[in-house]
Amino acid sequence: MRRRNETDLKAFFEPRAVAAVGSLREVPGTAYWVIRNMRHFGFAGPIHPINPNPSAYGEVFGASVRSSVLDVTGPIDLAAVITPPATVPKIVDQCAQKGIKAVIVLSEGFAEAGEEGAKIQKMLQDIVHRTGIRIMGPNTFGVVNAANGLATMPPYADQETLQRGGVALCSQTGSIGPHQMPLNDWNYGISKICDIGNKCDVDEADILDYLADDPETKVVALHLEDIRDGPRFMHAARRLTARKPLVVLKAGHTEAGARASASHTGSLAGRDPIYEAALRQSGAVRVRTWQELWEVPKTLIYQPLPEGNRFAVITFTGGQGVIATDAATEAGLELAVFSPDTVHKLSRISPRLGSNPVDIGPVMSDSRSQSSTNPFSALEQTMPIVLQDENVDCVTFTFYAGLQLVPMLPAIVDMIETSARGVSKPVNAWIYGTSLPAMEELARQLHARKFPAYLDLDTAIKALGCAAAYSRIKANLSRQGMEECR
Amino acid sequence: MRRRNETDLKAFFEPRAVAAVGSLREVPGTAYWVIRNMRHFGFAGPIHPINPNPSAYGEVFGASVRSSVLDVTGPIDLAAVITPPATVPKIVDQCAQKGIKAVIVLSEGFAEAGEEGAKIQKMLQDIVHRTGIRIMGPNTFGVVNAANGLATMPPYADQETLQRGGVALCSQTGSIGPHQMPLNDWNYGISKICDIGNKCDVDEADILDYLADDPETKVVALHLEDIRDGPRFMHAARRLTARKPLVVLKAGHTEAGARASASHTGSLAGRDPIYEAALRQSGAVRVRTWQELWEVPKTLIYQPLPEGNRFAVITFTGGQGVIATDAATEAGLELAVFSPDTVHKLSRISPRLGSNPVDIGPVMSDSRSQSSTNPFSALEQTMPIVLQDENVDCVTFTFYAGLQLVPMLPAIVDMIETSARGVSKPVNAWIYGTSLPAMEELARQLHARKFPAYLDLDTAIKALGCAAAYSRIKANLSRQGMEECR
Repeated sequence: MRRRNETDLKAFFEPRAVAAVGSLREVPGTAYWVIRNMRHFGFAGPIHPINPNPSAYGEVFGASVRSSVLDVTGPIDLAAVITPPATVPKIVDQCAQKGIKAVIVLSEGFAEAGEEGAKIQKMLQDIVHRTGIRIMGPNTFGVVNAANGLATMPPYADQETLQRGGVALCSQTGSIGPHQMPLNDWNYGISKICDIGNKCDVDEADILDYLADDPETKVVALHLEDIRDGPRFMHAARRLTARKPLVVLKAGHTEAGARASASHTGSLAGRDPIYEAALRQSGAVRVRTWQELWEVPKTLIYQPLPEGNRFAVITFTGGQGVIATDAATEAGLELAVFSPDTVHKLSRISPRLGSNPVDIGPVMSDSRSQSSTNPFSALEQTMPIVLQDENVDCVTFTFYAGLQLVPMLPAIVDMIETSARGVSKPVNAWIYGTSLPAMEELARQLHARKFPAYLDLDTAIKALGCAAAYSRIKANLSRQGMEECR
Repeated sequence: MRRRNETDLKAFFEPRAVAAVGSLREVPGTAYWVIRNMRHFGFAGPIHPINPNPSAYGEVFGASVRSSVLDVTGPIDLAAVITPPATVPKIVDQCAQKGIKAVIVLSEGFAEAGEEGAKIQKMLQDIVHRTGIRIMGPNTFGVVNAANGLATMPPYADQETLQRGGVALCSQTGSIGPHQMPLNDWNYGISKICDIGNKCDVDEADILDYLADDPETKVVALHLEDIRDGPRFMHAARRLTARKPLVVLKAGHTEAGARASASHTGSLAGRDPIYEAALRQSGAVRVRTWQELWEVPKTLIYQPLPEGNRFAVITFTGGQGVIATDAATEAGLELAVFSPDTVHKLSRISPRLGSNPVDIGPVMSDSRSQSSTNPFSALEQTMPIVLQDENVDCVTFTFYAGLQLVPMLPAIVDMIETSARGVSKPVNAWIYGTSLPAMEELARQLHARKFPAYLDLDTAIKALGCAAAYSRIKANLSRQGMEECR
């Protein structure tokens, strides 16, 4: 019997050669489509099509169809299997015989579907224990690796290119990945994506172990419904969070949600206070909504960590400042008290300035009535002063975008970049305005300069709150001498 | 001295003739620009430009410039004043002499700016008490009336047409209105917009009194930092909520937020539990974020009220169902238990169906592997069954939108409309998918059929939670015999 952690998960994400086992009909949902997706995403290694009736197909994407992985000459590291549940154990057995290290069982109809499926899933676990092969799934869309074009999901994928970067997305649901999420519209780069499905073998702890060592991954966003093995999870999470931030959405945190989770995964989600404590002790940063899970990493990946939780905000109206202050408090941030030097500098711009939140509205209307030059000059003047204050750890700036400003957006983006240059503090933007297309265009231009922008103020501030929380966690881990885990 | 509520606020929203007092330079931020905005929004009544130096201008938009409202022949109902603070009291006095009922003081530099401004603001209040004239502001952008094109804000307004409809937006900050918010992208119709500013006279209670009687207004969204007079507010709010829903964002609900509010409005925001109780007793439905305040009304305006809080959701994955269940619990909804008839009908579609949340993912992949007809047929089959269940009060449907589906969107929208036809229960949609433009396009097409759609699951469900909360409030008010307030 295989020992846990004997092998790492490299074969799931970085296989040299892949087998795709299942129907080769040229429609989404098949092994054919798995091959097609991988070719479109640019996976360059051999992909062997496997089907019990090879003569019906001949070649698929230039590769000969074989009736079994055992008929393939040359090594295979990973098999992606999408066949009826009853056929899967034999196929996985053959994979083990072939020396394949990793199998992704993409098919549905296992423990999540009832008694019969649960029995077959148990057979897969027996094979894992007997042979040491590793299985991801069943009931999964598998993995994506933006670095090598590996993409095992069988559905139609709207996005066949991915921005490569440092964020790993991992979930216990199929609704992530380029077939489900507007990854390119999120405007940050992806390292790995992984749907752990029914977790008959590979689970969240294994993934965190792998991602902790993955040099491409700088930030991990994790959706979980249950944790299979608390101590293993905590060990893996602490090892990871000593190196990089881990953002977690624990779904099923309400009682009704936990019941809904039990009915679709067959696993009991457990009581939330226990998860809360485990996640806190693991160094994970917890978010509350699906939207936050995917939007918070943008600030973590593009910006440095803050030294503390002292927050400043520059807004266009006093009302926005109050709302931002509420959001900051709820995100665990506290309002920075500006240094005398900052107060002095700000009040030289206008006697109305000097406190935090910085409401530049009145200054803007003064300057507008005097001249009609750059309407953002108040922002340009205040941003560097606020950023350089030693009492300020992180800042959200407000930007207005309307259709009439679209021609000016590149100049605004230049101004932001200049203002933030040379300061190693996390900064992000809340964009509001009169036109959604103009707001989205400004966000795109900011993201192109690695400056995180949000159309929702609360999420922008929550992201800085998560950055501050992780910064504190990391400092504590260092103090506790957690380095031995590295 | 004038008695409170002696006059209503009609003159602010439905004036026959308007005076615009201030600079007539052709730039944003002036009285000229106020006139320009009103003409662009289609206000058809006379607008008299007033400036101490009439010979410098001659005519503005075809109207002769006068040096004072007293020089205008013919009646004026409303004056919009944007002149330096020190000049305002005399101008308002002249307005009172002229018999003008309502003045909007658009200028800044009053109580929010310091001692000096506070003194001048006090002078305005004295004029109110002495003459009975009503003043909105100062430090406001005033009002918009989508029905008559009245629009008193002096800044550049990107959107010069408004979708006319039933939602009134009212705030204690200038960051609402067509010069600040993507109203047309929100895709619901507006009745009135009002920024109550420094509230030297007209306050939230007055506005609620007016909106309670306004036949154009069906839903009120209110942003507040403080309540000037608790009992008057509660009386007005209860009178309004007996007729139409009132959604409130109480900004400054954290201690730090309350301090920030005090520093920019000069008024103390007060302790949140007191507001919580007052708002609850007033029948208001409370939201927590800026985004919710503007997005929740979409469901209230387009959909009927639910009879109870029993919620159902149809999703494309089990994971989405768990997240939706958490969100429903937090929004005060409970998961509906389907009737035996519904369970029977659903299980005839697939043995995997029958419980709530309804996860149609497995059914969709089954049908996709059988034929490649309408991928939404599982949704088309399940929607009417769930909607017609007597144990279900409200429903969120999930829709997937990707670029490849854009040509199919009109058919999907038809299907949704057909499914919901003849059922008087509130329904909305969460749209997710692989392409933000495709998701936004589906939302637009749904909104054109008055079907509320959200790109954020939590906000969609929160909106149904608010509808259920208001439904309960309304039923309680009826039981308590609150009808005498009508």
